[in-house]
Amino acid sequence: MALNTQVTADHNAPAVTQILAQFVATHPSKGWSDAVEHDAHRTFLNWLGCAVGAAHHESTQAALAAVQMLEPAPQAVLAGLASRVDMASAALINGISSHTFDFDDTHLKTIIHPAGPVASAAMALAEHLGSSGRELMDALVLGIDVSCRVGNCVYPQHYDRGWHITGTTGMLGAAAACARLLKLDTHQTQMALGIAASQPVGLREQFGTMTKPFHPGGAARAGLMSALLASKGFTASPKALEAPRGLIQVFSTKYDWSEIDRGLGQSFEISLNSFKPFACGIVIHPSIDACVQLRDKGVKPQDIERLELRVHSLVLELTGKKEPQDGLQGKFSVYHGCCAGLIFGRAGEEEYADEIVTREDLQTLRRKIVAIVDDSIDEASADVTAHLHSGESVHVRVEHAVGSLENPMTDALLEKKFHDLSDAVLGQAQTQELIQACWSLGSSDLKALLKLCVPG
Amino acid sequence: MALNTQVTADHNAPAVTQILAQFVATHPSKGWSDAVEHDAHRTFLNWLGCAVGAAHHESTQAALAAVQMLEPAPQAVLAGLASRVDMASAALINGISSHTFDFDDTHLKTIIHPAGPVASAAMALAEHLGSSGRELMDALVLGIDVSCRVGNCVYPQHYDRGWHITGTTGMLGAAAACARLLKLDTHQTQMALGIAASQPVGLREQFGTMTKPFHPGGAARAGLMSALLASKGFTASPKALEAPRGLIQVFSTKYDWSEIDRGLGQSFEISLNSFKPFACGIVIHPSIDACVQLRDKGVKPQDIERLELRVHSLVLELTGKKEPQDGLQGKFSVYHGCCAGLIFGRAGEEEYADEIVTREDLQTLRRKIVAIVDDSIDEASADVTAHLHSGESVHVRVEHAVGSLENPMTDALLEKKFHDLSDAVLGQAQTQELIQACWSLGSSDLKALLKLCVPG
Repeated sequence: MALNTQVTADHNAPAVTQILAQFVATHPSKGWSDAVEHDAHRTFLNWLGCAVGAAHHESTQAALAAVQMLEPAPQAVLAGLASRVDMASAALINGISSHTFDFDDTHLKTIIHPAGPVASAAMALAEHLGSSGRELMDALVLGIDVSCRVGNCVYPQHYDRGWHITGTTGMLGAAAACARLLKLDTHQTQMALGIAASQPVGLREQFGTMTKPFHPGGAARAGLMSALLASKGFTASPKALEAPRGLIQVFSTKYDWSEIDRGLGQSFEISLNSFKPFACGIVIHPSIDACVQLRDKGVKPQDIERLELRVHSLVLELTGKKEPQDGLQGKFSVYHGCCAGLIFGRAGEEEYADEIVTREDLQTLRRKIVAIVDDSIDEASADVTAHLHSGESVHVRVEHAVGSLENPMTDALLEKKFHDLSDAVLGQAQTQELIQACWSLGSSDLKALLKLCVPG
Repeated sequence: MALNTQVTADHNAPAVTQILAQFVATHPSKGWSDAVEHDAHRTFLNWLGCAVGAAHHESTQAALAAVQMLEPAPQAVLAGLASRVDMASAALINGISSHTFDFDDTHLKTIIHPAGPVASAAMALAEHLGSSGRELMDALVLGIDVSCRVGNCVYPQHYDRGWHITGTTGMLGAAAACARLLKLDTHQTQMALGIAASQPVGLREQFGTMTKPFHPGGAARAGLMSALLASKGFTASPKALEAPRGLIQVFSTKYDWSEIDRGLGQSFEISLNSFKPFACGIVIHPSIDACVQLRDKGVKPQDIERLELRVHSLVLELTGKKEPQDGLQGKFSVYHGCCAGLIFGRAGEEEYADEIVTREDLQTLRRKIVAIVDDSIDEASADVTAHLHSGESVHVRVEHAVGSLENPMTDALLEKKFHDLSDAVLGQAQTQELIQACWSLGSSDLKALLKLCVPG
């Protein structure tokens, strides 16, 4: 019965809903630098690879089975699947699949995974409307700006309270993106954001269940429907975001309004997006990166007598599982991560299969790893030394793991990640074509890309 | 930038999600008294009348236009309309129409309008499943118990914070009702409640816009989909409601867990439901009731020199608009309410039409009303004296207005209200048949009733 809350309403908030609506409705097409444009393509590519990769996962399939009870019209593509469903359901399901492996993009400032809600809604609506690739990319950049700016405004208190910020801001980004695709004016866009404001989706309590990836999917669906409603004259409060009883003051105790319009239209949150090279928690990444580098230096598992891993205490606190029994436990084992790096040179979703985690050679190598807590090492770093039977030792220190903002994944690595996710679903050749279609989306047809999302 | 919040997590909450799921999955059919069963029929009747009545309202029509962009399968009836849509969209639209006039039921303990989310979801799914009227009534009673008990647990702090409690608990009631109709077991019902927990719908900031009635509609839709997902094996946290990062602790600072299971299965919240005789805020009701009684005593508008109205200060604070210019303003005018009572003997949605509010005889009568603040009179009461040209005066005092829990609307009045709402949509004869079908729903076929919901 924990009370003790005293919240004072702020009656002088700026016109957040109106400011964001005007931005979305009026910002010029490709009104940003080539660098931002390239970042946007990276975000789209990474999102689509994740969605295709999880097409046959039980979460995606369960959601599809539920949606099929509605006998949906075949309006929109599902990434990696032959079934088509209505655009709102496509937004839901692509949103779910894209977050299922927890391998999608991260806006590190807020831990929002922004593409899930925004790209899932925008692609489904764009297909139905016959929008161009250019229009879809514009919607993506603007939509992500909206959700991440609202995220910046309320983070971290909102997240700390227990909301899953990806889905509780994502419906705003999705609504913004869809309003843009529908060419709504400022007023209607404001209504779309307002309708969406009543529909935050997500609790952190759901982490570890299928409802976690449901959050971006549900947010995508809610945002798309909000834009459709607004386009038909449905109304909402024009101050739905900022009013004392509007979303931001109701679901957060912190609101830094300056985050909404500082640099609006000049700097773009999509450029702060990062991409994971490894299918596990970010805290393991430096250790895996170091082990991949050891492998690149010629170190072979059978030559190793002892692998000394020096990391910050947090790493072992969160991922110190010494003897993981299945794939899910493997995700919480820095030991398994290191083995995957050394043996396979990667740690994608495949390397977290149950039969890989329990394979004998991985178990053997795992037992050679000695993890040492060293809080002089940053959480984002790792220091690894392989002591070989020969008496030699090989040392690698990683300050910033690949995938961090300081050391982002290269385009080539993003392509490799896409192949790893998609080849088994769409085949290697079609995957390669799809990757190319993603890179050129901003200046080409959307239809060709959509066709490549479907197997066969 | 109002901070100052200190919330302590309660790690020892009872297993709320599991307790409610087991109740919904295992409580016997019609496992309550005849009185409760009758109350349930009253709730259903009142809900359906409100939904039929607003079938052609612009809110309902805008929502329908948006839904039609999805090319929905014709799975389920829309109250008062010929169009059919998929069951999830039917839940949405019937939920919107039923709350559009703000004339639906009120669980006075929490100000929840419980039928909107629950009945809208349940009727749509029941039609698709071919459920019996009995199964639908069971789902309604159990679903409403779930949302209102969660409401009791968090009211009033949750509402005070700015959440529109009808839609932020309604998705749980809708999920419960749909889980019951799908005959889900305790575990699956727990998952349905868990999935729904991530989808609260509604902010008080939206009051006065179409998004207010969207809240029960959105909650109905979310609850129905949550149950469908659970039926296909979709998972959620089994403690999604009560965990420190679960819904209740995240969206409220008060949680009285005893409200969840005190008398569970023995007393039913649906019996605490009340129904409005007048299409305006509850605070005006005693004054209107008094004026209807004056009319019944033979007082005619033209005989009145001065009408003295003594009420609590809150009445004038909330509804003191002296010269309303249209129907919406009329809803905030105790003066117009009194005129409607005296001239028409009623104050239904029709008496709040723009052309009625501005009619000359009403304006004339309005100016004869003198309102006097008297805080010795309860908020739920009114004291009215008509001083006539003849020198006579006629006095009426209303302690508890009709529609209050102490003086509930009779079944006959509920039927009259239904006719007032529905006759223009479905015709008088069909409306009468529909009313009869509502009264006998618990022991008869659902199909016959559904047919009567459609015009022609």
